[in-house]
Amino acid sequence: MKQLEKITPLEQDFAKWYTDVVKQGQLIDYGPIKGTLVFKPNSYGIWELIQQELNKIFKENEIQNVYLPLFVPDRLLAKEKEHIAGFNPELATITKVGDKELDEKIYIRPTSEVLFAEVFKNNIESYKDLPIIYNQWANVVRWEKTTNPFLRSREFLWQEGHTCHSDTLEARHFTKKMISIYAKFLKNYLAIPTILGKKTPHEKFAGACSTYTIEAMMKDGRALQAGTSHYLAQNFSKKFEIEFKNIKNEKENVYQTSWGVSTRLLGAIIMTHGDNRGIIIPPRVAPVQIDIIEILANKDSRVHEKATELKKILGRKYRVRLDDTDKSAGYKSSNSEIQGTPLRIEIGPKDIDNNSVTIVRRDNLEKITVAITDVKNIIDKLLDKIHDNLYEQAKKRLDENTIFVDTYDKFKEGISNSKFVIAPFCCLGEAEEKIKAETGATTRCIPKEFDKPLKKNKCIFSSCSNETNLYVVFAKAY
Amino acid sequence: MKQLEKITPLEQDFAKWYTDVVKQGQLIDYGPIKGTLVFKPNSYGIWELIQQELNKIFKENEIQNVYLPLFVPDRLLAKEKEHIAGFNPELATITKVGDKELDEKIYIRPTSEVLFAEVFKNNIESYKDLPIIYNQWANVVRWEKTTNPFLRSREFLWQEGHTCHSDTLEARHFTKKMISIYAKFLKNYLAIPTILGKKTPHEKFAGACSTYTIEAMMKDGRALQAGTSHYLAQNFSKKFEIEFKNIKNEKENVYQTSWGVSTRLLGAIIMTHGDNRGIIIPPRVAPVQIDIIEILANKDSRVHEKATELKKILGRKYRVRLDDTDKSAGYKSSNSEIQGTPLRIEIGPKDIDNNSVTIVRRDNLEKITVAITDVKNIIDKLLDKIHDNLYEQAKKRLDENTIFVDTYDKFKEGISNSKFVIAPFCCLGEAEEKIKAETGATTRCIPKEFDKPLKKNKCIFSSCSNETNLYVVFAKAY
Repeated sequence: MKQLEKITPLEQDFAKWYTDVVKQGQLIDYGPIKGTLVFKPNSYGIWELIQQELNKIFKENEIQNVYLPLFVPDRLLAKEKEHIAGFNPELATITKVGDKELDEKIYIRPTSEVLFAEVFKNNIESYKDLPIIYNQWANVVRWEKTTNPFLRSREFLWQEGHTCHSDTLEARHFTKKMISIYAKFLKNYLAIPTILGKKTPHEKFAGACSTYTIEAMMKDGRALQAGTSHYLAQNFSKKFEIEFKNIKNEKENVYQTSWGVSTRLLGAIIMTHGDNRGIIIPPRVAPVQIDIIEILANKDSRVHEKATELKKILGRKYRVRLDDTDKSAGYKSSNSEIQGTPLRIEIGPKDIDNNSVTIVRRDNLEKITVAITDVKNIIDKLLDKIHDNLYEQAKKRLDENTIFVDTYDKFKEGISNSKFVIAPFCCLGEAEEKIKAETGATTRCIPKEFDKPLKKNKCIFSSCSNETNLYVVFAKAY
Repeated sequence: MKQLEKITPLEQDFAKWYTDVVKQGQLIDYGPIKGTLVFKPNSYGIWELIQQELNKIFKENEIQNVYLPLFVPDRLLAKEKEHIAGFNPELATITKVGDKELDEKIYIRPTSEVLFAEVFKNNIESYKDLPIIYNQWANVVRWEKTTNPFLRSREFLWQEGHTCHSDTLEARHFTKKMISIYAKFLKNYLAIPTILGKKTPHEKFAGACSTYTIEAMMKDGRALQAGTSHYLAQNFSKKFEIEFKNIKNEKENVYQTSWGVSTRLLGAIIMTHGDNRGIIIPPRVAPVQIDIIEILANKDSRVHEKATELKKILGRKYRVRLDDTDKSAGYKSSNSEIQGTPLRIEIGPKDIDNNSVTIVRRDNLEKITVAITDVKNIIDKLLDKIHDNLYEQAKKRLDENTIFVDTYDKFKEGISNSKFVIAPFCCLGEAEEKIKAETGATTRCIPKEFDKPLKKNKCIFSSCSNETNLYVVFAKAY
């Protein structure tokens, strides 16, 4: 039985707060290789619920799950130069099996575009076979130098969707549809608001024609790219000869998309909702939605009896935990808080005398006393309230900390105050590198639309004198 | 749109039949590296349903899902000599990242005992923390020389459970409980009967104290090890120093188990139930339970209307596919058979005139005409009948082809006739190697118990003159 340790206050040292929360919340252990993680039940459970809910949405959208190999041979990856260049320094490479050297280098997949390309090439003949809409849940490996639990791990878990279409419009439409699905999912299941937009060419995915993103704001003001959807056009299909016979019976290359979300989302949950007591898990993806805590169970046998009965009743509909070990009630309550369980129900002898229980909300620590017969009717409402409260707080923070600027001085001030800064900016490309070097900020996205049309304004980049109505979101990012 | 090709009859060439079924049933593509697979929706869907149903059973048994890293450093794997020796020639080894050589060899996990050992060591302090019952769904890699889709792939998917207990009895009991759970699961969900027993020391898992197995009989008479459960005793816990304070406050090493089933089960399904038309998927794990086939839909618009309505109604409860492309009805029916969909419903203009549909069972090709209003009430019963029929056929085959022998001559005859041969046999160890060299058969298991107690008999091994009441199942195996 491990002691619960103190969590560094987030105002004092955000990075330390984060790693404390991750460890103390029973979310991970560090793996034996730097940058790898052990997902413990409290974090893997969130990921499983994300999978489950996304799978339902995928099914409604006729997305089929498949599983492709972990291994990419050199000859395949080398076919698309821009793509391989984007991943090359991070590729974990198998050169030996047992004592034998392999003839060809084999990489662990950093993403699976080229593997899917082979499958599509082998399975598509006619426009009647299209669209193909595949998704896989998989582990991928990118050997990053700097690592951070969930945010930048050398191995991470994700889903990657890959599609082929018979025309560009359908494919472009699908790319946008997926990023909207992600935005809605983050709002409705993770209680995380995001800004949806297009990446600048400088920041797009290696090999894509265009990349859409949803950007979330963490509690320290930094941006986290929470999901992406890429329109690949015919880039891979030309290099990998993925052809179909169109309705005129002519050969044509397919139009493709790919899109994904990863276990980064767990980092996003922590840094969007967490507080100085630990993680707060949004109820719809909480592996444990309700912790039942027995008070003075060793003094009064009715307590355990009632707690067990309540667990049985609530367990039919909710994910409920009743820890019946002889750890103290105080320890169990602290543990429930630090692990981010949305609700805890405390039952002691007094409660039983009064035919009531005490319910404590994790998000605002509000305590309510409820007649025991009413408990099962109130839970739905409470869980929804917690979800809504978490979302509203995060939305308010995002709105309050997103500012418009019209000069480079105000831009720098905004970035140094950890804001999302929206600025008129037309110098896509090299200027982005210069601004990053000067301020640490990168272009996060070109938002699709604003509530009101924005007027033309001078580009904030100092050496540019153009007026532009292209507005770009900048921020420091994870 | 690929042409459907002929499947080699299983009586003619079983191995060829198997690979034909695997390819034609839209189950896999071969991956770009020998021995790796692309799991297409029709096979990955089975695996997802196996996961889903096993997860429910795991939850009832308080098994918690986790996810551990893909990578095992040399220093960890080397700690347990017997264990590493068992896997060494098959270890895929990462030596480079980008252009950089790594300081230490890193293996791709062939199984995760040593990774779990580290986690347990770091998380257990007291008997109050026990038992810990973890499971992970993961990909593992064993670089086999000879490969065969699903049966022996270089990368495969599995679940591996790992537990720690405070006493040996509890751990031994848990080992047996898990193998029983697997046997029941195969019977109730995959319609596969098995023989449950203990592996001989010669055939047990590298590093285990004892291994339990369930052995299934394929249509060619060969055995397939379909699931295993290992009692690891304190073997890993001593080498990895996994200790707990027992109730007397003394330090003690934990007692461990591990257990797993893999995507081999997909091979078992094919070779247990498949026929010359292709795979037959047991209804409870069929990604598509019902194919709706429109007949003459281009001549009569009522057909598509009715088919769509039926899909909507049945789709609420079953996994239903309605392929509304303009492929021919004949193609769609053949495709449904070759892909093993348990039921297909045919609707044509005549059916609509008669207010009926034709339902075809995949297992026995029986056609029934049913009033359209009765369809939704009959499906449950039909799917259960298919399941039961598949199980009974397989059970009959297993029973009829399992023989008892009391001499080595009869033993050899039985093996050469592709039987499971049960024989009195006490010469565990070297004699197993000799028998394998002579007959191709290996010891599959020592079955737990027979319907009636077996009397002592002379050991069948030629150079042994002992009498024994140890009976062992032998067979050629996958």
